[in-house]
Amino acid sequence: MKLTHIDENSNPKMVDVSQKEDTQRVAVASGVIKVSKEAYTAVINNQAKKGPVLQTAVIAAINGAKKTSDLIPMCHPLMLTSVKIDTKDIPELPGFKLTATAKLVGKTGVEMEALSAVSIGLLTIYDMLKAIDKSMEILNIRLEKKSGGKSGDFIRS
Amino acid sequence: MKLTHIDENSNPKMVDVSQKEDTQRVAVASGVIKVSKEAYTAVINNQAKKGPVLQTAVIAAINGAKKTSDLIPMCHPLMLTSVKIDTKDIPELPGFKLTATAKLVGKTGVEMEALSAVSIGLLTIYDMLKAIDKSMEILNIRLEKKSGGKSGDFIRS
Amino acid sequence: MKLTHIDENSNPKMVDVSQKEDTQRVAVASGVIKVSKEAYTAVINNQAKKGPVLQTAVIAAINGAKKTSDLIPMCHPLMLTSVKIDTKDIPELPGFKLTATAKLVGKTGVEMEALSAVSIGLLTIYDMLKAIDKSMEILNIRLEKKSGGKSGDFIRS
Amino acid sequence: MKLTHIDENSNPKMVDVSQKEDTQRVAVASGVIKVSKEAYTAVINNQAKKGPVLQTAVIAAINGAKKTSDLIPMCHPLMLTSVKIDTKDIPELPGFKLTATAKLVGKTGVEMEALSAVSIGLLTIYDMLKAIDKSMEILNIRLEKKSGGKSGDFIRS
Amino acid sequence: MKLTHIDENSNPKMVDVSQKEDTQRVAVASGVIKVSKEAYTAVINNQAKKGPVLQTAVIAAINGAKKTSDLIPMCHPLMLTSVKIDTKDIPELPGFKLTATAKLVGKTGVEMEALSAVSIGLLTIYDMLKAIDKSMEILNIRLEKKSGGKSGDFIRS
Amino acid sequence: MKLTHIDENSNPKMVDVSQKEDTQRVAVASGVIKVSKEAYTAVINNQAKKGPVLQTAVIAAINGAKKTSDLIPMCHPLMLTSVKIDTKDIPELPGFKLTATAKLVGKTGVEMEALSAVSIGLLTIYDMLKAIDKSMEILNIRLEKKSGGKSGDFIRS
Repeated sequence: MKLTHIDENSNPKMVDVSQKEDTQRVAVASGVIKVSKEAYTAVINNQAKKGPVLQTAVIAAINGAKKTSDLIPMCHPLMLTSVKIDTKDIPELPGFKLTATAKLVGKTGVEMEALSAVSIGLLTIYDMLKAIDKSMEILNIRLEKKSGGKSGDFIRS
Repeated sequence: MKLTHIDENSNPKMVDVSQKEDTQRVAVASGVIKVSKEAYTAVINNQAKKGPVLQTAVIAAINGAKKTSDLIPMCHPLMLTSVKIDTKDIPELPGFKLTATAKLVGKTGVEMEALSAVSIGLLTIYDMLKAIDKSMEILNIRLEKKSGGKSGDFIRS
Repeated sequence: MKLTHIDENSNPKMVDVSQKEDTQRVAVASGVIKVSKEAYTAVINNQAKKGPVLQTAVIAAINGAKKTSDLIPMCHPLMLTSVKIDTKDIPELPGFKLTATAKLVGKTGVEMEALSAVSIGLLTIYDMLKAIDKSMEILNIRLEKKSGGKSGDFIRS
Repeated sequence: MKLTHIDENSNPKMVDVSQKEDTQRVAVASGVIKVSKEAYTAVINNQAKKGPVLQTAVIAAINGAKKTSDLIPMCHPLMLTSVKIDTKDIPELPGFKLTATAKLVGKTGVEMEALSAVSIGLLTIYDMLKAIDKSMEILNIRLEKKSGGKSGDFIRS
Repeated sequence: MKLTHIDENSNPKMVDVSQKEDTQRVAVASGVIKVSKEAYTAVINNQAKKGPVLQTAVIAAINGAKKTSDLIPMCHPLMLTSVKIDTKDIPELPGFKLTATAKLVGKTGVEMEALSAVSIGLLTIYDMLKAIDKSMEILNIRLEKKSGGKSGDFIRS
Repeated sequence: MKLTHIDENSNPKMVDVSQKEDTQRVAVASGVIKVSKEAYTAVINNQAKKGPVLQTAVIAAINGAKKTSDLIPMCHPLMLTSVKIDTKDIPELPGFKLTATAKLVGKTGVEMEALSAVSIGLLTIYDMLKAIDKSMEILNIRLEKKSGGKSGDFIRS
């Protein structure tokens, strides 16, 4: 199996997409943060008013998507055409799920942008709750689906 | 339970640490990426030579630690005095574990810096293996321990 | 009157603060955006629910404070210890006022950090309302007060 | 009136421009800084030689235009094709006016880029004159005109 | 001879490329760092194992290419489609040569991106060897060739 | 000879400076760009008026110093207390020399900040002259002297 990001001298490289077509691309990723009952309740109670914890996470996630090529060394700079973040309360965990949908009309996929958005959003929830609970855990960061590009569509089974 | 990052008007704020003492602070965080057998073997085989996948992840993780205050909206800018990343092969998963140790002499903890380092490092592994395996999953991002500061030490049980 | 940021060859320079003491510093700045009645009502109605326009502005303002040394060429990099943003509805304008309070224990003042926070916050409100009203105007960005440092306190008269 | 940057759950989002055409877009914004007589004279005298205050502001403004998507949370990353800054002395205020013209061939307008350029440029003038005058005020940051895109042209009346 | 980045008022400006065609563009740049025998040997010995000095330089160089428009005030933001870095040991100097190849489908050349990559990569080698040798020197940073765009091809003679 | 930035597993690391004292540190670095007679004359003629080429380079160099920890992977984030750039015309080359002086009160040296400033400044001159001359060369980027810190002073012989 060949590693696409490694050149003939075993050095990392940015994959050459110069000859690729501009196509409509979409990627959806998700992830979860598991928190204590106290932390969960603090967010939910606050949410009843203005929800600044989850809303800060949403904004941080969109920001994280835009910074992907600055964070992941071999990622191409991209002109994202859309980023949308959905949050879901999971009372039975308890915790929160973030889902990021990133879009681009361009030469390369936006999986990393969707995954970075989710990761930064979940870290932001951690940051805002860590005075209550330091044992939170971030889980299940994964690609849900992607479409567009030569490698074809992917839907997580 | 009070949310330290939310002010009296329910707006997010950066916590005021102006009156805190400068103390030696350390935080250790870890996380795991679960990959397919094919992806795992590709890294291990390459590692025998120069290991650019894991080494790129190590560098991205250190970079990620330095960018924390740019990524997490309410984080203070900090002058990290040390960041060290350890990688561990987990053949039975299969996958890889990253552990980040961040240090600071300052007024606030470096948990978020250690957690960001791990998250960005794992995303970098995802990026470099995604042509082989799109169903990888990032797991168990968590604080292992911290010391320094008024809130006392934390060791994950 | 000597320009402190211009050297003997008429080149801009970062002022040398190496010999200055670390002191507690605070700066407060404010600014206003004047918007149409339609745009004002859209924010206020939405505010009843979750207030994402003003809350996004608050987060952008905090972020803007942290980016000051990256935006203003001669500003020193600083380790802000606190940033707090207050928003105020001005129904008679109509419009919104942002006030930013920045703090630092360090060798140089944080006026620019407070002013940048206000500017970026107001631009964010503009961005989120510009589909409704393109003729909004940003006004009265100014320092309200500062304390700490050798040049003494300032209170706007 | 619908807020285009707010989704069905009252969360902020980046507007989806994936289906928009690439068109030639231009935006012009302006703003003013009112300074004391002493500060005004210091700039004008220095300008006779090399003008580093206004020239630093011009460079900071161009830089500010390029950083817009990093500063304004819901702005798309863009590939600006042109940024030009004009400065004007206003002896009767006294003060200075900055005008920024931003251009793009792309899917979304460049109003925010022109407005950010003006804001960052004016803040830079503030920074370089603040040792002389702390009561300066930034005024009248506004869009002068825009063209291109589906929403049509705008000229400030 | 007219300076393309200077406007009619002697202010720097970003060159207007709005009317230019998107074409395939390539630029190759190189540069050298001369180091002491001890530093050279330390790298070469380490290279036998994992080569982290040169590999860190490669990653920093790719990162540097992506940051060009943030570093060089009048550079346009670009969506690089490829960056590749080659390293060469020069035992007779002794020292190391870096060569960067940058590609873009766009309206302006990528010479600065290739030159920035080389510069940042060489500075990274300096950083990692400076505990052994402080008298290292960076040399011969230059454009080797470029193709694409209206100004035609360039090959260094 | 031990590489201070490489850990026991041959991974790069940020050197741990947690136990170091805060001391006054200064570093001076310089570098040269060799240009064609035409390009040299264009700058000198323009300099007679406002000197935007060299002044843009000065501002970019200061900016480059501030971005060092973002550019060089193992560099610590630092709070520079002073950056000053000197330019010198070299008619006999012909070309220009940049000298950067960086200062810090802190735990680690500022050699890389001075060297980055020089490199980014020279690249900026290249950028602004490249329409006239593509065969320019950047030369002799080196540390001139440093003081402060445990490793003692260095003066280039």
